Amino acid sequence: MSLYDALKRACSDEWEAYVNHAFVRQLADGSLPEACFRHYLAQDYVFLINFSRAAALAVYKAEDVRDLKESAALVDLLLNTETPLHLEYCARWGMSPEQVAATPEADANRLYTRYVLDRGMSGDLLDLLVALVPCTMGYAEIGRRLAAAPSTRLEGNPYRDWIELYSGKEFQEGSAAHAAQLDRVAGQRGIEGDYSASGRWSSLVENFRTATRLEIGFWEMGLNP
Amino acid sequence: MSLYDALKRACSDEWEAYVNHAFVRQLADGSLPEACFRHYLAQDYVFLINFSRAAALAVYKAEDVRDLKESAALVDLLLNTETPLHLEYCARWGMSPEQVAATPEADANRLYTRYVLDRGMSGDLLDLLVALVPCTMGYAEIGRRLAAAPSTRLEGNPYRDWIELYSGKEFQEGSAAHAAQLDRVAGQRGIEGDYSASGRWSSLVENFRTATRLEIGFWEMGLNP
Amino acid sequence: MSLYDALKRACSDEWEAYVNHAFVRQLADGSLPEACFRHYLAQDYVFLINFSRAAALAVYKAEDVRDLKESAALVDLLLNTETPLHLEYCARWGMSPEQVAATPEADANRLYTRYVLDRGMSGDLLDLLVALVPCTMGYAEIGRRLAAAPSTRLEGNPYRDWIELYSGKEFQEGSAAHAAQLDRVAGQRGIEGDYSASGRWSSLVENFRTATRLEIGFWEMGLNP
Amino acid sequence: MSLYDALKRACSDEWEAYVNHAFVRQLADGSLPEACFRHYLAQDYVFLINFSRAAALAVYKAEDVRDLKESAALVDLLLNTETPLHLEYCARWGMSPEQVAATPEADANRLYTRYVLDRGMSGDLLDLLVALVPCTMGYAEIGRRLAAAPSTRLEGNPYRDWIELYSGKEFQEGSAAHAAQLDRVAGQRGIEGDYSASGRWSSLVENFRTATRLEIGFWEMGLNP
Repeated sequence: MSLYDALKRACSDEWEAYVNHAFVRQLADGSLPEACFRHYLAQDYVFLINFSRAAALAVYKAEDVRDLKESAALVDLLLNTETPLHLEYCARWGMSPEQVAATPEADANRLYTRYVLDRGMSGDLLDLLVALVPCTMGYAEIGRRLAAAPSTRLEGNPYRDWIELYSGKEFQEGSAAHAAQLDRVAGQRGIEGDYSASGRWSSLVENFRTATRLEIGFWEMGLNP
Repeated sequence: MSLYDALKRACSDEWEAYVNHAFVRQLADGSLPEACFRHYLAQDYVFLINFSRAAALAVYKAEDVRDLKESAALVDLLLNTETPLHLEYCARWGMSPEQVAATPEADANRLYTRYVLDRGMSGDLLDLLVALVPCTMGYAEIGRRLAAAPSTRLEGNPYRDWIELYSGKEFQEGSAAHAAQLDRVAGQRGIEGDYSASGRWSSLVENFRTATRLEIGFWEMGLNP
Repeated sequence: MSLYDALKRACSDEWEAYVNHAFVRQLADGSLPEACFRHYLAQDYVFLINFSRAAALAVYKAEDVRDLKESAALVDLLLNTETPLHLEYCARWGMSPEQVAATPEADANRLYTRYVLDRGMSGDLLDLLVALVPCTMGYAEIGRRLAAAPSTRLEGNPYRDWIELYSGKEFQEGSAAHAAQLDRVAGQRGIEGDYSASGRWSSLVENFRTATRLEIGFWEMGLNP
Repeated sequence: MSLYDALKRACSDEWEAYVNHAFVRQLADGSLPEACFRHYLAQDYVFLINFSRAAALAVYKAEDVRDLKESAALVDLLLNTETPLHLEYCARWGMSPEQVAATPEADANRLYTRYVLDRGMSGDLLDLLVALVPCTMGYAEIGRRLAAAPSTRLEGNPYRDWIELYSGKEFQEGSAAHAAQLDRVAGQRGIEGDYSASGRWSSLVENFRTATRLEIGFWEMGLNP
């Protein structure tokens, strides 16, 4: 079993509450109030900035050239693809780049990224990646779920772009590469086979659980603009 | 006066010893023993790996999106342009990628990058950039000097590529951007105008001087394969 | 004017909302519900652990032996005096060390310390100290205010110990030393005289304002057990 | 087998070269030139400063209160016992505190501590402790060896104090506590039992080997004032 699957299984309640959150269901059927989406979108821009910093930290923490390059590619993707795309997307929702850039960071947003940065800085590359995957791989899983669910409405759904972005080939491939890196780094750090037998297991689970809970907090923030 | 010029002026002896080092002069007239160049080249590959980590640290430390992006572009340049170019170059000098990757890091090399990383981590973005510029801008200055010096021999010089790389447009422009970033970040961190009047000046000078001395140590290492 | 006074003046609304918070007023007159105080106390224990980590970061970031020693003394005070005192205090309020240690960290708590740690890690020692002072010096100011206010009731007040701790000589002296260190480090980092003329001023103010807001969030958390 | 013993066995050549270095043997029989000892002593003071920063980093990186306190005690020991003792000792060898504090950091010295700091920052607490033990436990082992060796001359040996410091009860106990912490943290990080079966083993060995080599470099520096 991949480390990601084992972590999800160990935190199944939190994981379900995250990937199946009311915010996600309302995106899927198009019923999410626009004010909620706009609030979420602007905060997500601020989130991306700090998430890029966390990806850069993964470059600093890499022990070999391959990991260095994979994390550098993530920094590049976040800053040079995701961030401009976000601004473009915001523009379609009536928010100028200046407005978005001036968004005050919400507490739930700041809490999440600063947790990830501290966990990553105080731990090793594996601790950092485990704190990052609920975001990168969770969004990919949400994308796949929504694309496959009969209850998802694409036709006339104002959030269709969002669904197609995260269920799309590019994001899915990026996320799969991230999952592969997680398992590779876990092996390098002595975590493989029967994960739960490792003295480090409880710390990894606690980390994944906390990051997942902070994702839930991010959706909650979205619902309360 | 730019901060870079002020720092060079404050450390003029060390700076001259660096940019005018015997290693550089022997590159310029083609008299450098091949064994020295090969040793330097392989160590420089290892250096680039850790220098990329320092550039990634600058992404983590950035206070605004512009600096985030500039440092991310530097990471990308180092890892995706400079590093492969280095391996290609090494290949022409008879070293396979495997041989280069297996190079044990020399003390002078490790000392330099670990100093930069610690100075950058313990200080702020300006401290980090000041520790980085003797490399980025020093090489650009060396490139310009060699291109302009009558004593430089290009014809039949086995190190012509090296001279042309660092005197070339791309490297010169990258280095100029770096200089501009240094001044901009200095301003954001309260360092502008009469630099030497700042309570922080001695610390900045000491940092620049140390990094310059470690560049000299790197040339010395090159001369002693 | 000291840097601390200048920062308070620049954030006077947030500062008043913090040092004059309902939680503080209810401590002063003894009307705070016990459940609120217990909740606050257990969270404050968890806070101290992470605050000690931030003080240790200040040791790592120090540029001279004096700062190294001052921050090391703060680590020692927090871990070897404040933390046991907290556990003792908790015991008097019916919470065993085991119960306190098992307290799940509240979001408002985690947000505060992780913000401080990231600000300190990404910036320099001055950024770190500025993020720390709303706690160290704010509590000292609250202690002094409560000790001097006619509305404060000591007799029969269940929170008398708390008031006496923070208005007491030892805490006041520690906090004064911290203020002196702040000004000294500011000078070393080029911040003195007309603070607001520095290009760094807005960043320092934003940092102080955020930390002060997170203190308010901590009181809010206390009121909502 | 303790992790420390396993690491020493994996690096036995380097370990012997370190604990049995000419500098150590000349300390033992009193034949070390005074100029070498003075040079070593002043550099060791500078070393202690940066080593304290590394111990403070271990406080920042601790995952539980026990490790937090143990590392804080090490910071305290280094800054408040070892450092003043060093200055006192230097005074007996004719160097004033001002002279010692003004010692320019030698390359071999800077290389060692910056390596430890970067390894600790980029890795986790275990990586940091593994980089620290060649110093803390190596000096204890040297102390024990010298105290037990028939070739050691105490009578009339100008370095008798040094030998007695490191073979003494206090240092031996501190070092034993450090060894116990290493094994405990290794367990928490999933490293126990058959160490060499872990995917992380080669990284731990490389780290220990490098730190040991840098200790040898420190002795070499001592022999070449």
